[in-house]
Amino acid sequence: MTVGIIGLGLMGGSLAKAVKKYNIANKVYGYVRNDEQKKEVLDLSLVDEVVDIDTLKKECDLIVLAVAVDTIIDLMPQLLDIKETTTIIDLGSTKEIIINNIPSNIRKNFVALHPMVGTEKNGPKAAIDNFYEGHIVVLCNIEDNDEFHSNRILNLFQDIGMKIVKMNAKEHDIHSCYMSHLPHVISYSLANTVMGHEDPKSIIALAAGGFRDMSRVAKSSPRMWTDIFKQNRENLLESIDLFEAHMKSVRDMVENENYDELEKWMVKANTLHEIL
Amino acid sequence: MTVGIIGLGLMGGSLAKAVKKYNIANKVYGYVRNDEQKKEVLDLSLVDEVVDIDTLKKECDLIVLAVAVDTIIDLMPQLLDIKETTTIIDLGSTKEIIINNIPSNIRKNFVALHPMVGTEKNGPKAAIDNFYEGHIVVLCNIEDNDEFHSNRILNLFQDIGMKIVKMNAKEHDIHSCYMSHLPHVISYSLANTVMGHEDPKSIIALAAGGFRDMSRVAKSSPRMWTDIFKQNRENLLESIDLFEAHMKSVRDMVENENYDELEKWMVKANTLHEIL
Repeated sequence: MTVGIIGLGLMGGSLAKAVKKYNIANKVYGYVRNDEQKKEVLDLSLVDEVVDIDTLKKECDLIVLAVAVDTIIDLMPQLLDIKETTTIIDLGSTKEIIINNIPSNIRKNFVALHPMVGTEKNGPKAAIDNFYEGHIVVLCNIEDNDEFHSNRILNLFQDIGMKIVKMNAKEHDIHSCYMSHLPHVISYSLANTVMGHEDPKSIIALAAGGFRDMSRVAKSSPRMWTDIFKQNRENLLESIDLFEAHMKSVRDMVENENYDELEKWMVKANTLHEIL
Repeated sequence: MTVGIIGLGLMGGSLAKAVKKYNIANKVYGYVRNDEQKKEVLDLSLVDEVVDIDTLKKECDLIVLAVAVDTIIDLMPQLLDIKETTTIIDLGSTKEIIINNIPSNIRKNFVALHPMVGTEKNGPKAAIDNFYEGHIVVLCNIEDNDEFHSNRILNLFQDIGMKIVKMNAKEHDIHSCYMSHLPHVISYSLANTVMGHEDPKSIIALAAGGFRDMSRVAKSSPRMWTDIFKQNRENLLESIDLFEAHMKSVRDMVENENYDELEKWMVKANTLHEIL
């Protein structure tokens, strides 16, 4: 198979490495925005060749959109004239708005998915060949795809070691909101709270007790996450409100010294033990 | 040196192992609350002998209070008749209220400190001999200790591989609040929010994107953390208010679709990169 990847950061670059590692692709093309990025991905040998989008469309069996979620939508008009046998996938963290924007004449070719794996790192240098192994990939609304395309993608992600979960896009966006987008908002808030209050010396000295873990995702790309928050705005607002109700409740319990109630509330949180 | 440790969970048990590993103690006594715990710590060979507090006072050069912060204070009246050469330390996460409660006739012997290391795990089984290595220990208000006692403790913690930071107790409690206690409150809130909304199946399937890291400390002991929140109540309320101002601000930016402002706010959080 010939694979073309648009965007060669952590996600795209790691997929480029994975399809080579597992002999899924005999040739991997890449598309990047500028010459600086071109030099970087070629120096890192992430792809065999960096080409333009026309070449991708002509040569590739699979085109991967591994860019920010708004850019995925921006790219769609350029992909209208792909071959019937060409499959497109996107790796975006939101799914409903992306799917609603897929032009009808490529809807059958376009498999919308979300690999449930990530770190706060980004960029081509962060790419590794086993990034996806052992993790879950969520395929959304694949009943709208031709089986030729959906089966190709099912096989590909199984071949690189991922577990497949199928889900409705609306559902996916709600779950992703609670499991990922809300935690990101909270982490950014915590990081800004602590850096607004504490000097760097104290942060370094005392960063053992929880802050290090909880602020890790606040290092994630603001460009990428602004688009995600934008596309999942309604779910996000709802989840912030639910979280805020808990914050208000814990604040009240501390303020009013209801320590028995506070302890019970924490015991409830502890049941997470049984799940994760 | 003969060391006696009251409380043999993760913190106390790991210290018991460390003073043996580095040949600091020729004998380690332990005190635990009940027969079940006694059996467990002896089965794990954490201490040479489990004894009562009178024996600890008679035999030990160093008595370690490795129990919940309120229990540290509850134990003080039992320690009034120690020998002049006996040193006491506590490993509590709060320092000001503990120090204010130290009876004056043992103030010189009692070195109040806080090892800046922890996990969500607890109990004797979690104890490991290199738990403290490479981490920071904060010693508070040591100008109130006899040099004999403070030097003994400085040496001991250096010998087990810790870096020493000296700090005023009031300052310690503020820093610990932002770096640890606030993150714990937030993690408990996030865990309760997500478990109140998501089914366990989705949590397991989708727990990659941030939630796993950010909910880890919500597995910590509610008993222990209730006491910490209680003792650091005023700082905690203030830090919750600062955090809540950020949460309100991010909610407003999303609600009003001020995405440029939102991105700038996240870029600010990103500067954490330069510190941690």
